[in-house]
Amino acid sequence: MKSYLTPLGPKADKDTVRRHNLSLVLRAVRDEGDAGEATRAGVSARVGLTRAAVSSLVEQLIDSGFLTESGKTFSGQAGRPGTALKVARTGPAGLGVEVNIDYVSVCVVDLAGTGRVRQTEHLDNRGAPPDEVLARAARIAARTLDSAREQDLYPVGATLALPGLVSGGSVRQAPNLGWNQVPAESLFAEALSGLRTGDAPLPVRSENEANLAALAELWFGGLDPVRTFLYLTGEIGVGGALVLDGRLLRGAHGFAGEIGHVVVDPAGPECRCGSRGCLEQYAGQSALLRAAGVEESGGGAAGVLELERRAQAGDARAVAAVGDAGRMLGRVLSGAVNLFDPDAVVLGGIYRGLMPWLSAHADEELTGRVVSGLWSGGSGRLRASSVAGDAARGAAALVVQDVLADPVAYARPAAFLGD
Amino acid sequence: MKSYLTPLGPKADKDTVRRHNLSLVLRAVRDEGDAGEATRAGVSARVGLTRAAVSSLVEQLIDSGFLTESGKTFSGQAGRPGTALKVARTGPAGLGVEVNIDYVSVCVVDLAGTGRVRQTEHLDNRGAPPDEVLARAARIAARTLDSAREQDLYPVGATLALPGLVSGGSVRQAPNLGWNQVPAESLFAEALSGLRTGDAPLPVRSENEANLAALAELWFGGLDPVRTFLYLTGEIGVGGALVLDGRLLRGAHGFAGEIGHVVVDPAGPECRCGSRGCLEQYAGQSALLRAAGVEESGGGAAGVLELERRAQAGDARAVAAVGDAGRMLGRVLSGAVNLFDPDAVVLGGIYRGLMPWLSAHADEELTGRVVSGLWSGGSGRLRASSVAGDAARGAAALVVQDVLADPVAYARPAAFLGD
Repeated sequence: MKSYLTPLGPKADKDTVRRHNLSLVLRAVRDEGDAGEATRAGVSARVGLTRAAVSSLVEQLIDSGFLTESGKTFSGQAGRPGTALKVARTGPAGLGVEVNIDYVSVCVVDLAGTGRVRQTEHLDNRGAPPDEVLARAARIAARTLDSAREQDLYPVGATLALPGLVSGGSVRQAPNLGWNQVPAESLFAEALSGLRTGDAPLPVRSENEANLAALAELWFGGLDPVRTFLYLTGEIGVGGALVLDGRLLRGAHGFAGEIGHVVVDPAGPECRCGSRGCLEQYAGQSALLRAAGVEESGGGAAGVLELERRAQAGDARAVAAVGDAGRMLGRVLSGAVNLFDPDAVVLGGIYRGLMPWLSAHADEELTGRVVSGLWSGGSGRLRASSVAGDAARGAAALVVQDVLADPVAYARPAAFLGD
Repeated sequence: MKSYLTPLGPKADKDTVRRHNLSLVLRAVRDEGDAGEATRAGVSARVGLTRAAVSSLVEQLIDSGFLTESGKTFSGQAGRPGTALKVARTGPAGLGVEVNIDYVSVCVVDLAGTGRVRQTEHLDNRGAPPDEVLARAARIAARTLDSAREQDLYPVGATLALPGLVSGGSVRQAPNLGWNQVPAESLFAEALSGLRTGDAPLPVRSENEANLAALAELWFGGLDPVRTFLYLTGEIGVGGALVLDGRLLRGAHGFAGEIGHVVVDPAGPECRCGSRGCLEQYAGQSALLRAAGVEESGGGAAGVLELERRAQAGDARAVAAVGDAGRMLGRVLSGAVNLFDPDAVVLGGIYRGLMPWLSAHADEELTGRVVSGLWSGGSGRLRASSVAGDAARGAAALVVQDVLADPVAYARPAAFLGD
């Protein structure tokens, strides 16, 4: 009988405790800031450390540029007024680089999680070799970093968001890009270093783009109190992510969430993944536009806008195509819900704008096929993503999470040396 | 931006630390016992406590009946020989009660995880009202407890294993039993108390049977190092469970794993769950026997044996029926694997014996449809469950887990009072 025997770790020493507490205080200020003004007293109550300890930690965080302090604030309660604390809007930040099928989008997020710089270029990445695509993304990233510097924002790391199976720094497979075994992290990092010869190299990591969009939705999208959900993003491919109690469910190898390749009809059309009849072939952007009779020549984004316009105008073929896609989505989602039992399903990407013609059909399938009965019509569990659910922002915010989890690791070298 | 801000818990006091360490030592002896003989020195090395501390904790565990000590053991290493420690084979134990469609199986598991008493009755539970079914299960459980007492085993709790959606002590829905909103825990507990008037009432909890079979497979089935897997059990229904890194994935409401109701064909035969074309209608026991032309009149278990016999003899209809079921399983499993990315899929129940005619067809679907490419033929990731993967044993072992996690809570009142 195997157990969950937890080996005793080394005892936490003073330095470890201090680093942990600096993180606690920094995150508490960030979270209080969401609600209103953060004060030393409020932080003390929230994290359970004494007022004196919090004050000392706050001073260190101010000295090293993670927190700023503004004028007096009056809490409305008895006692001395405190000064308002905020996480710094300058200094350490995160860089997110989404390389998708027909666009590259780069953004910089500050410590508060706010997107501060964004550059997006629409282009078709399907034709080009991976190293060229990543070199182009690096050029956009370098320009974005220049803009960030003008705002005194200095990203301390970058996350690549990629539409495929990502593991160990490489893209194992990205069917719609035609990538196989591409060492994306190192290709991008080298290209970016080559463009920023004076600067220290930026640590780069990579992650599936739907995973990052789901995290962005969780962190910024007002999903609360939902913490367990399935996220779907309709693009040229159909990406998916599972979030279980506020954490990404990556599976055994990091490849979980590939709902776009769940089979709808075993004898259906060939899919780029090598299988047949995958959901993507029924509810992906190309399939949808084709079924609706919208020419894709104007580019994907233009085609989707045209589809929305026609559906809005009551064009029968457009409405029927979106309805059919909704039914297929609902059918596959009902299976996923039976398996995973989420609190909600969030639809992003092209589905966001198509919800009026899509959701009732998907809901009908969910109502009839989810065995728990919790998904009957009008349950409100199927919802559109917010604008926040965007992979580049999630990618950048993932870097910020690291900073918040251990600010000492990202401080200017001398900042935390003195007491 | 929401964070994973962890509030500081209260500081662990001496008593909490001692209870924790008693559990650590008890589990270490159990785990060492799997490999060979456990000694104080071995336990000390494993848990990272001093030899003196371990000796003191061991004495307490021996005094209170959780550990036993046998004669000298020679480690083959330099130094004094130690005595061999074992978890007690008498005393606290767990009771597991599986109430399934056509049988009730009850077992008692000792602290080492070994099944010590088992009673199984084959009967059709579909016709009877839930309170009668549970009263019958209680009678079998009471007889099992009598047998256990003769071996000096005293279950400290019971787990009900039920083929349906189980949450908060009730069965929300068990389509194949025809149960809806049945307060199974209290019905069973009351019936059992009525049969054991002299004894203290046994705490009862309930859980989905596939979840418990999956745990039994994890703990006793030799799956190691696989810790993330999908478990399927073919019975009259098709049950499923997801295990993520050694823990059950229950989902937001406890209803995860319902793979039997993933849709195969939206226009397929009606399912007892109210939907159409669920996997159960293609790969469940009744569907399989029907397709193979095996009369079910001899009872389910007899029918499955007859099916195996015919397949073994090369009966074309039997072989084709099992092959078709394998293809359907493979198709649905490929979707589940794309979503959840497990390390393995384990097939239990009737599928165990049918693997020779089933697995190649399922493998073919998995090879073609899993986008990661990790499931190509001969990957060995699709496997039969061991005999260990049984819900009643998992149910009983869940109680034992509680005892191992905090032995003090299950000791005779005076046992841990002195130092």
